[in-house]
Amino acid sequence: MTETAPPTRFSHPVRVYWEDTDAGGIVFYANYLKFFERARTEWLRSLGLSQQRLLRERSVLFVVAETSVRYLRPARLDDLLELSVAVADTRRVAIVVEQQALRVDAGGAELLATGTIRLGCVDAATFKPRPIPSDILHRLI
Amino acid sequence: MTETAPPTRFSHPVRVYWEDTDAGGIVFYANYLKFFERARTEWLRSLGLSQQRLLRERSVLFVVAETSVRYLRPARLDDLLELSVAVADTRRVAIVVEQQALRVDAGGAELLATGTIRLGCVDAATFKPRPIPSDILHRLI
Amino acid sequence: MTETAPPTRFSHPVRVYWEDTDAGGIVFYANYLKFFERARTEWLRSLGLSQQRLLRERSVLFVVAETSVRYLRPARLDDLLELSVAVADTRRVAIVVEQQALRVDAGGAELLATGTIRLGCVDAATFKPRPIPSDILHRLI
Amino acid sequence: MTETAPPTRFSHPVRVYWEDTDAGGIVFYANYLKFFERARTEWLRSLGLSQQRLLRERSVLFVVAETSVRYLRPARLDDLLELSVAVADTRRVAIVVEQQALRVDAGGAELLATGTIRLGCVDAATFKPRPIPSDILHRLI
Repeated sequence: MTETAPPTRFSHPVRVYWEDTDAGGIVFYANYLKFFERARTEWLRSLGLSQQRLLRERSVLFVVAETSVRYLRPARLDDLLELSVAVADTRRVAIVVEQQALRVDAGGAELLATGTIRLGCVDAATFKPRPIPSDILHRLI
Repeated sequence: MTETAPPTRFSHPVRVYWEDTDAGGIVFYANYLKFFERARTEWLRSLGLSQQRLLRERSVLFVVAETSVRYLRPARLDDLLELSVAVADTRRVAIVVEQQALRVDAGGAELLATGTIRLGCVDAATFKPRPIPSDILHRLI
Repeated sequence: MTETAPPTRFSHPVRVYWEDTDAGGIVFYANYLKFFERARTEWLRSLGLSQQRLLRERSVLFVVAETSVRYLRPARLDDLLELSVAVADTRRVAIVVEQQALRVDAGGAELLATGTIRLGCVDAATFKPRPIPSDILHRLI
Repeated sequence: MTETAPPTRFSHPVRVYWEDTDAGGIVFYANYLKFFERARTEWLRSLGLSQQRLLRERSVLFVVAETSVRYLRPARLDDLLELSVAVADTRRVAIVVEQQALRVDAGGAELLATGTIRLGCVDAATFKPRPIPSDILHRLI
């Protein structure tokens, strides 16, 4: 990655439905973790990585080890959000991604929430940490 | 609607994510109601009806009054589903829709679940039944 | 059980939290299926049946095959509900239970929703129907 | 509070049901935020504070402004957890609580997850920050 080429952010659209809201009239805060996870899944899929296949064929599971989320503005019913993913760090048994939830409409984009998610690579049978397979690691970075 | 023209079924794609599954390895049965609801929302949107706007501007809320769902085959992580909506009946204060969840892949489409959902029209402030506004009713049928 | 003693209904308390509500200010309709399911789990536990153990030790899984729910009155944040379970029918490979959600407060109990749930007994590996083991069936009825 | 008396931790039991698990066989990570939130609600209730009443009568809403969660060990179906709450910091318009999820069984207690949650006090109509009413603040600390 050179100084002139910023990292490409993967982005995935998410629509807000009734199921996502709470009695405060806004998206329930825990649901941003679902939105972030959907975006990560689509990001992996865009890299040719199916979690279902990794699980079944190679017993590789990425589990969430740590999450930090800041909630800046509420999202509401019918809002169209864009959920982004960018790799912040890769280690032997874990990767860290930075994620954003933006509301997009005619007026532009507004940052609603940001998240930092650390994903550990584990063996699906034992849940013990294992190195990220190198062919997978190469696709992630 | 004439005898020769079958009703057009609205259809909306839904991807199965981790959040939708349970420890049985399949989509948790209650989540089909979420999928059905997403499809109904997109169907209303396709007819120019925003539930958020109906709620705020006219205090009109469609609430689910009755659901019947049959679960035929399980959906799994990463499955791509098509959720359909078709109006089965309209009354003064309620509409009944038939919904289907199909799994679509290279091999074709497989019916996973069917639902019949009765939606009552209520005043958002009192939750008392109220007639479906005629301009809305005309779009639904 | 004699003719003069009505069947004992198992009942389990459920408190309504933010996660259960939606932007309409009431419990999201799909969540009653979660409440019903919690009550069934506690009912099975009260009969000495652990679903986790049935799954791991005997590959027996009860899957929801059909649900019918009528929503009568909305539940709201902080409401305390009682969720009941009563066996309506038992067959070779399925049982049918009747469930109710009641709001209980100083003024008495109010019926909010009723459900009829058909549970099929399947092999956890193949998801194929299998007869309910007789020792389990004897506890259910 | 003296040096010799450690702060009392409020604790609330949560049972793991099918709805909480995912296809990895463990509790879905976003659901710990739900568990933490249930414990905070019961903690507020134990202090005589009903969020529903604060919302309706005083337009006071506590919204989650920031969450940090570390996931140490997975919880599974049927596990009985204890969710704790302890105030870590109070400010004019926010409070910070430390939360833990422990699995309790005959063998003792095992720490599964820890969370730090910052709650902002806002006006329910505008979602703008407002000072925590002093009568409420006095109960929290």
